[in-house]
Amino acid sequence: MKAEIIAVGNEVVTGHTINTNASTIASLIKDVGIMTYYHSAVCDVKEDIEDALAKALTRADVIILSGGLGFKKDDLTKEAVCHYLNKELVMNEKVLSQIKSYFEKVGKEMTDKNKKQALFPREAYLLDNDYGTALGCILKVEDRFIVLLPGLPKELKPMLKHYVMPYFKALQKEVYYTMDIRLFGIDESVMVEKIEPLLGVFEWGTIAPYVGSDEVIIRVTARAKDEKEACNRAEIAKKHIVNCLKEYVIGYNEEKIEEKIMNLLQKKQYKIATAESCTGGLVAATLVGCSGISDYFGEGIVTYSNEAKRKYLGVKEETLRQFGAVSEETAREMAEGIKRAAESDIGLSTTGIAGPGGGTHDKPVGLVYIGIALKEQTYVYKLNLNGDRQTVREHTVKSILFHLYKLLK
Amino acid sequence: MKAEIIAVGNEVVTGHTINTNASTIASLIKDVGIMTYYHSAVCDVKEDIEDALAKALTRADVIILSGGLGFKKDDLTKEAVCHYLNKELVMNEKVLSQIKSYFEKVGKEMTDKNKKQALFPREAYLLDNDYGTALGCILKVEDRFIVLLPGLPKELKPMLKHYVMPYFKALQKEVYYTMDIRLFGIDESVMVEKIEPLLGVFEWGTIAPYVGSDEVIIRVTARAKDEKEACNRAEIAKKHIVNCLKEYVIGYNEEKIEEKIMNLLQKKQYKIATAESCTGGLVAATLVGCSGISDYFGEGIVTYSNEAKRKYLGVKEETLRQFGAVSEETAREMAEGIKRAAESDIGLSTTGIAGPGGGTHDKPVGLVYIGIALKEQTYVYKLNLNGDRQTVREHTVKSILFHLYKLLK
Repeated sequence: MKAEIIAVGNEVVTGHTINTNASTIASLIKDVGIMTYYHSAVCDVKEDIEDALAKALTRADVIILSGGLGFKKDDLTKEAVCHYLNKELVMNEKVLSQIKSYFEKVGKEMTDKNKKQALFPREAYLLDNDYGTALGCILKVEDRFIVLLPGLPKELKPMLKHYVMPYFKALQKEVYYTMDIRLFGIDESVMVEKIEPLLGVFEWGTIAPYVGSDEVIIRVTARAKDEKEACNRAEIAKKHIVNCLKEYVIGYNEEKIEEKIMNLLQKKQYKIATAESCTGGLVAATLVGCSGISDYFGEGIVTYSNEAKRKYLGVKEETLRQFGAVSEETAREMAEGIKRAAESDIGLSTTGIAGPGGGTHDKPVGLVYIGIALKEQTYVYKLNLNGDRQTVREHTVKSILFHLYKLLK
Repeated sequence: MKAEIIAVGNEVVTGHTINTNASTIASLIKDVGIMTYYHSAVCDVKEDIEDALAKALTRADVIILSGGLGFKKDDLTKEAVCHYLNKELVMNEKVLSQIKSYFEKVGKEMTDKNKKQALFPREAYLLDNDYGTALGCILKVEDRFIVLLPGLPKELKPMLKHYVMPYFKALQKEVYYTMDIRLFGIDESVMVEKIEPLLGVFEWGTIAPYVGSDEVIIRVTARAKDEKEACNRAEIAKKHIVNCLKEYVIGYNEEKIEEKIMNLLQKKQYKIATAESCTGGLVAATLVGCSGISDYFGEGIVTYSNEAKRKYLGVKEETLRQFGAVSEETAREMAEGIKRAAESDIGLSTTGIAGPGGGTHDKPVGLVYIGIALKEQTYVYKLNLNGDRQTVREHTVKSILFHLYKLLK
């Protein structure tokens, strides 16, 4: 089935609120075989809502509207949908008493205005709201479905998961399985060339490349009669893709590279420590983002000044003078220095010119050296990065974790 | 002028990417007097893009499309727009050579496919891309404007700010001046109550409160015949607002609190150092985010283990045993310890339980102590934070910077 998602609300259209609902809805309903082809967002204006609904009914089987189910005067979604379909809004006494008890529970006064939330289109299938008073509903109009959901993400998402998806799952004959393969260190164009022979090969699904902020993602979607078969099919595609791109794979689905590193540290019983200059603590902070890292990471030092590089890491005066703070040699001494100071198995270091100032002809903004001292061996990598200060720093973090992951694997 | 924003891309429609561009665009172009009334998102399908454009041309003066300017087969925005308008795509030799040098600079191979990014609709006004090879453009069609922007937010936002907004600003008869007043440490409802008497008072503009992820923002928009007058008007509103909410103001517009802190460090010629546990380097990384901080920040230590807290900061064994690592006493010794070790004027410390594990009845997840050793005096603040691991850590960073700023001011 084809879906269209319509967000209703001035706060979305004016840009005050980011429309996260649309991506939540599209991502989730895919799993029950509903593919989204269009999004739109309109203001809290009855005519605009009706106009969007009319357009959607010409091209989608499932139309999902979010927002405009509150008690305020400008909450108009139910009114607009009913007006367009020439349906009546009727008071649901059961919901009315639920709303009353909700207000009693939270100790707030219920006003006449709140009664509006107990009005629903005649013959609608109601969707419970476990986190608020704005119930949703599904209207079946011939062979089309119109789904009304609340605008608040914390109410919308559980409603979708617990009530909307089971409703549609019961209608489906096929199951969909989706898997993301995440890559780093490869240019999108090169990646596309490498997987080109696989595109369009599997008649049971799709392989689609996406570009994230500093990653490339290949999404595999497989269709089958049951979940096991769909999963098997996705695994077949995955095997082919990984075969072409092995050295760039950093993870699957939501898996984070730092968590994969933590698992490897656990397996090898390695301790890790960090010495950072240009990243200023971001490498350590990323590692500390993993719950449970304390068994493998105990300390890190931000050595922004040359003085600190000498004091904590034992970087030689001579090295700094001869090669400069941003050099292969300094990165090497920093990595080895922190490994020694922390008595760890791994020492990571970063030193570079994040910009906007500080660049020269020989050492331009974006030049970064990263060091990895791993047991008896030290590896130094030179990066030439583009982007502003923040981008350079974030890309440096990603790079050092990527190289560490490859070395540990 | 009325605007409609169209996002082009399967990754948006399928929900893989959240459409942050729409809100970025709508928020920014408001400042040059362009109000957004509709959003939509369509797949990388020529007919769908044309259909969305056709609809938009019936109801908007400015149509902004984002995405689909890459070199891949399914990057079709320019093709679709030109097909719909019956315009030709022509090769721009200057852009072609720019793309060539870009590939040389980053040391990657340019393929024939990449040439596609140098094709533009005839008579289009080109928009430079400072962070990639996908240039944008503006097409004037009678009294309408069609703006094509790249899909990557880090490319789209600077293009919008530096090239699109000045283009439209030059067309406006009235000038809009916008100022964001950013607050921290105050609840939205309290803030709204405090500024309520000011809402709707100024007939030349608006005062609108927004809630960010951990800040509250009051946006003042003033309209006038010229920039100076608009700016003066905004300043009047600002004065009234700041008067009501002085102790919560952390900055204006894009001004970052860490930059304001850096300015105060410069004024007082203070040096600062950090000792972090739960934030794992984020405080240091935030300071290092300021270009020029090296004069005031030389070192920071991530003391995640108790051992590191003793070794680098001299936190007493006894303190850790009696009060625990997450305690007022430990935060105090950490702040004083790093100030001593770094021979700085200010020492900052964080220690807390970021979760999801590690919480107890007495010390629940979200309990954080932050310490500020400022010259002869040490201040410790206790925070009880909500949210996941990342949220707790980010809020801790914001809190310590907020308190430091207040102390320095």
